[in-house]
Amino acid sequence: MTEQPLVGVVMGSDSDWPVMEAAAQALDEFAVPYEVDVVSAHRMPQDMVDYGRSAAERGLRVVVAGAGGAAHLPGMLAAVTPLPVIGVPVPLAHLDGLDSLLSIVQMPAGVPVATVSVGGARNAGLLAVRVLATSDGELGARLRADMVRFQEDLRRQAQAKGERLRARRRGAGTGFTA
Amino acid sequence: MTEQPLVGVVMGSDSDWPVMEAAAQALDEFAVPYEVDVVSAHRMPQDMVDYGRSAAERGLRVVVAGAGGAAHLPGMLAAVTPLPVIGVPVPLAHLDGLDSLLSIVQMPAGVPVATVSVGGARNAGLLAVRVLATSDGELGARLRADMVRFQEDLRRQAQAKGERLRARRRGAGTGFTA
Amino acid sequence: MTEQPLVGVVMGSDSDWPVMEAAAQALDEFAVPYEVDVVSAHRMPQDMVDYGRSAAERGLRVVVAGAGGAAHLPGMLAAVTPLPVIGVPVPLAHLDGLDSLLSIVQMPAGVPVATVSVGGARNAGLLAVRVLATSDGELGARLRADMVRFQEDLRRQAQAKGERLRARRRGAGTGFTA
Amino acid sequence: MTEQPLVGVVMGSDSDWPVMEAAAQALDEFAVPYEVDVVSAHRMPQDMVDYGRSAAERGLRVVVAGAGGAAHLPGMLAAVTPLPVIGVPVPLAHLDGLDSLLSIVQMPAGVPVATVSVGGARNAGLLAVRVLATSDGELGARLRADMVRFQEDLRRQAQAKGERLRARRRGAGTGFTA
Amino acid sequence: MTEQPLVGVVMGSDSDWPVMEAAAQALDEFAVPYEVDVVSAHRMPQDMVDYGRSAAERGLRVVVAGAGGAAHLPGMLAAVTPLPVIGVPVPLAHLDGLDSLLSIVQMPAGVPVATVSVGGARNAGLLAVRVLATSDGELGARLRADMVRFQEDLRRQAQAKGERLRARRRGAGTGFTA
Amino acid sequence: MTEQPLVGVVMGSDSDWPVMEAAAQALDEFAVPYEVDVVSAHRMPQDMVDYGRSAAERGLRVVVAGAGGAAHLPGMLAAVTPLPVIGVPVPLAHLDGLDSLLSIVQMPAGVPVATVSVGGARNAGLLAVRVLATSDGELGARLRADMVRFQEDLRRQAQAKGERLRARRRGAGTGFTA
Amino acid sequence: MTEQPLVGVVMGSDSDWPVMEAAAQALDEFAVPYEVDVVSAHRMPQDMVDYGRSAAERGLRVVVAGAGGAAHLPGMLAAVTPLPVIGVPVPLAHLDGLDSLLSIVQMPAGVPVATVSVGGARNAGLLAVRVLATSDGELGARLRADMVRFQEDLRRQAQAKGERLRARRRGAGTGFTA
Amino acid sequence: MTEQPLVGVVMGSDSDWPVMEAAAQALDEFAVPYEVDVVSAHRMPQDMVDYGRSAAERGLRVVVAGAGGAAHLPGMLAAVTPLPVIGVPVPLAHLDGLDSLLSIVQMPAGVPVATVSVGGARNAGLLAVRVLATSDGELGARLRADMVRFQEDLRRQAQAKGERLRARRRGAGTGFTA
Repeated sequence: MTEQPLVGVVMGSDSDWPVMEAAAQALDEFAVPYEVDVVSAHRMPQDMVDYGRSAAERGLRVVVAGAGGAAHLPGMLAAVTPLPVIGVPVPLAHLDGLDSLLSIVQMPAGVPVATVSVGGARNAGLLAVRVLATSDGELGARLRADMVRFQEDLRRQAQAKGERLRARRRGAGTGFTA
Repeated sequence: MTEQPLVGVVMGSDSDWPVMEAAAQALDEFAVPYEVDVVSAHRMPQDMVDYGRSAAERGLRVVVAGAGGAAHLPGMLAAVTPLPVIGVPVPLAHLDGLDSLLSIVQMPAGVPVATVSVGGARNAGLLAVRVLATSDGELGARLRADMVRFQEDLRRQAQAKGERLRARRRGAGTGFTA
Repeated sequence: MTEQPLVGVVMGSDSDWPVMEAAAQALDEFAVPYEVDVVSAHRMPQDMVDYGRSAAERGLRVVVAGAGGAAHLPGMLAAVTPLPVIGVPVPLAHLDGLDSLLSIVQMPAGVPVATVSVGGARNAGLLAVRVLATSDGELGARLRADMVRFQEDLRRQAQAKGERLRARRRGAGTGFTA
Repeated sequence: MTEQPLVGVVMGSDSDWPVMEAAAQALDEFAVPYEVDVVSAHRMPQDMVDYGRSAAERGLRVVVAGAGGAAHLPGMLAAVTPLPVIGVPVPLAHLDGLDSLLSIVQMPAGVPVATVSVGGARNAGLLAVRVLATSDGELGARLRADMVRFQEDLRRQAQAKGERLRARRRGAGTGFTA
Repeated sequence: MTEQPLVGVVMGSDSDWPVMEAAAQALDEFAVPYEVDVVSAHRMPQDMVDYGRSAAERGLRVVVAGAGGAAHLPGMLAAVTPLPVIGVPVPLAHLDGLDSLLSIVQMPAGVPVATVSVGGARNAGLLAVRVLATSDGELGARLRADMVRFQEDLRRQAQAKGERLRARRRGAGTGFTA
Repeated sequence: MTEQPLVGVVMGSDSDWPVMEAAAQALDEFAVPYEVDVVSAHRMPQDMVDYGRSAAERGLRVVVAGAGGAAHLPGMLAAVTPLPVIGVPVPLAHLDGLDSLLSIVQMPAGVPVATVSVGGARNAGLLAVRVLATSDGELGARLRADMVRFQEDLRRQAQAKGERLRARRRGAGTGFTA
Repeated sequence: MTEQPLVGVVMGSDSDWPVMEAAAQALDEFAVPYEVDVVSAHRMPQDMVDYGRSAAERGLRVVVAGAGGAAHLPGMLAAVTPLPVIGVPVPLAHLDGLDSLLSIVQMPAGVPVATVSVGGARNAGLLAVRVLATSDGELGARLRADMVRFQEDLRRQAQAKGERLRARRRGAGTGFTA
Repeated sequence: MTEQPLVGVVMGSDSDWPVMEAAAQALDEFAVPYEVDVVSAHRMPQDMVDYGRSAAERGLRVVVAGAGGAAHLPGMLAAVTPLPVIGVPVPLAHLDGLDSLLSIVQMPAGVPVATVSVGGARNAGLLAVRVLATSDGELGARLRADMVRFQEDLRRQAQAKGERLRARRRGAGTGFTA
């Protein structure tokens, strides 16, 4: 038996998957059930509209949408669903994602898209977790625990890194202080 | 008696209010209780950290943060609260908000900020409503009704506008068709 | 009785009309019948899809679409009609139309939009005339005559301008040559 | 015996061919006869003017022109032919095609160029097909059939891709839903 | 009797004159004879080619050409004349001259344009003087004298300005030093 | 009697003073003695070199230099003095200071310039204070006191602002919480 | 026994070390004692605040901070320490450091960050030396000596390079002059 | 015996040589004698000033200067010599030469630099030839002959290329026309 997916992860082309996979991975880490689909605003416009319109009824709570270039998928989905839509600008071969970013973030008043960084799919997944955690106490607790653990791990790594740096450079006889 | 605010609307400087007011107005339209504060990442760093850390405990569910230039407030708040943080790039006198946008949206993996358009505070408010509506059936219904009404109003306006355009131009005896 | 419109001039918001009017004016100059409508990709998505799908059947031959910011209208229409779609990037208050331009021109392979300059609605109208003239000998003749007349007018103006410049500066006793 | 070419595909340098080839390929797919030439605005200016001036008389209906950097070929051709000219910004070693794009799209009022994305030669070919199809019922039918087939193929691929993704991840025992 | 003009100052449109006038003024200051014309690459392509081709024969030594947007005039002239061509990027209503600059400066190998700053027509005039002075000893002497005088004037102004600043601030009783 | 100036505030043109004045004002607030001069890298190159070379000997400890466009003054001064040089990008009529910023900040390895924001002269002054305070205990104490007072003032203002906002909106009968 | 570190070199992530190492190396060359740490504004916000707050008390005189993307570390440190903070924009995979640069340099009035070029860590180190040398006569002498030696070395290299160029090309029998 | 060099080719660092070599090569093709030197504005400021000041006296007629990043060499040379200075923006590891371009081209009124494209050293050499040819009839004749030969070669190549393309594609049985 499978759980009801709460997040829909969609992308305009399966070539976006290497970028978007990190969103799915973040959701996995928090055991948030989700579905993955390729839904192109430009090549499957009616499917895209149908996907957006049915998203809430099918039980989804958040949509994560990635697209590149003239990236219309996140904004178009936001136009047909009342769910929060998180947009991931996927960088293409030229212009380094600036076109993707502006095409997603510069939405007109009335139709918001929650935009993350160029290629920032992991953050899109984590943002979906934050949204879900606003009404899921258990998930919120896991999220807070994760933030604490994340920061502790980082502190440990930072200290270890500092140690290694100090050790390596001390041997070199420079002015480096321990 | 006042309701528990669910959204914290904060900005780095009160000069950001003319931009940020539109977020508050959107929340008012949906009768979502909120609080407004000036909290500067750079000038009140500990207050900012305290604000973020206590946000969830104080009952907030979403934070909307606006800032301009090297805009660090949304990202720093996202680092100290597990709540979803929505960032509004406020345009300054130079560079037209491009600096504000990049400073907010290009967050590192692990700390997401839901970024809206340059000056897009109304969308930040509406995005907060969408987030809250994921777990509030009544608000969700109002949101869906609003989307329907919004689109109907727009369709009427579009038709009226079309009529006026056609009438005005028909009188000019051009090739305009009715 | 009205003629069958051959060009559909659409825009995402009636605030785009001051920019888009120049497209209509160009069509008037060539007596090309057209229709004008407000059709928002984001606020009236199904209407937009319906508009695009029915465009060819309703007798349109070309669509001219203007939009600003995350400008999705031209690309979405191009996704649902086989007609040539001409996109006009409308500049908004920030970023000077760069967002509008990239959102319209950077379409993925398979769904072309014929993009003109930022605010270049007159050229969109003229491009529609060129397209129609590929199969309308009379219109083609008018277009060629117009190009000739345009260039002759310009040459006359250029010469007159040169005269005025020379006269004005000669009086000033400078090294200007007549 | 050869057919009358309807589209002229030209480029400023034969080093543009790897980009421009995709335009020719799109025309091949629709069996649209075309010719290919190297015509440099800067290095063969009179040839370029002659090419543009004779284009319509030689039976061409559409010109597709690619160029990079200070890309003047599409605009100069549009100045000497009444045919629709489609411009392809070819990216060079520096600036990632932004210079090519702006040099092509920002044409002054009176001389339109139908610009496609940076490196978007396939779309230039497809746009030429759309233009020709405005007066060629058979080609229009093929274009519509292609759009349908394209979207069906994409839908099938999307579903298959979804299946593979689901299968792969289900085995991993994560929260992924089927 | 008039002197043989040595510099041709041309622009794509007479609306460029308010910017380009500063080039003429610089030439006046050095008593360099010149001619002014409106010659549009896009609207008078054959006139433009003829202008460029005959420039050297007519006795011109340098061409100064201003244009905006997809600014093709300087580059096209450089393609048809062996004279040095100096390009002035004229800023238009949008994109602040970045398009004009890139369209002029990014010329392909083989066809150089000497580009000055956005709106930098005065420097275009002065650059023409420098070019002419490479073979005109008297003009070279005037140029060197002008550089000396220019720098002396500036030094005097700078000192006077410093005095005024010091006087004004000293009265205010601040820490300003005399 | 006047104090020995410790900071040299220089600019390429006196038209930069309206921007640069804020640096002087910040120094005044901390009673740091300084001198102001117009020193142009391009128009007074030898004066500029002399200014930089003598700066340390004349008792200056920090140089603050503002310039716009191809802004070479800060970098050239940094090349001829061992003092820390703080660069202020002054925005010109076009390109909004992006050219000034890049011309100042992108210095090659070996010659650092401490760059502040576009038009950020006040921060340049404050940065000079920070530098001086590294070896002036009294100034350091004033700086720390100022930071505390600054943050307290801001907190008070923020609270007052919050009060006013709450009061104003409460009267409007909206969902605003007190 | 170790010397008291005078400079704190910090970075948001140890992946920044390959860029930041050059700052440490410059400090080594001048025998300036320093410490190196990983301190993330986003992942260890309280540690970051504590680091900044204690920096002066722990004897540091200058802080060098590197970060990439929405780079908040330098600005946040500058908000909690009165020491001069030098910011190094670390380029990430996309946007080539433009986001890092703007996020660091565009600080609001009151909180300066001394920004160096994208990836310019060596200059950050040298700038720290310049700051320290304002109150350390011996270090100042070494700095001046280094500038002299640096310029002499460069002159020698430049001459040698010129020789090699001349020799190589002379052999080729071209118009190259010796 | 060597000829008097007429062009000085200088660069800020010998790492610029791979880019700048193309300028020397163009001068070689026209048998224009020149000299090559490394002269850094930032690292050898006095040498740079001396180089510029003596350039005309030493018999140079044109200076070609390349530099990258905050590229001050061309502008500083233009400030100390009355000769025409041609600037070549050398692209660095980041920002793709945009910083180099703006630092060179955006010179203030009074001090022109003739800027060519990013990495466009060959055009800098050719521009120097054009400048020299304004007063050297023989060189002018060679330049005109070269333009003719260049265009003829290109036409031949273009035709050959067209042939090859046609042959290759004809074999593929597509709609390609001969």
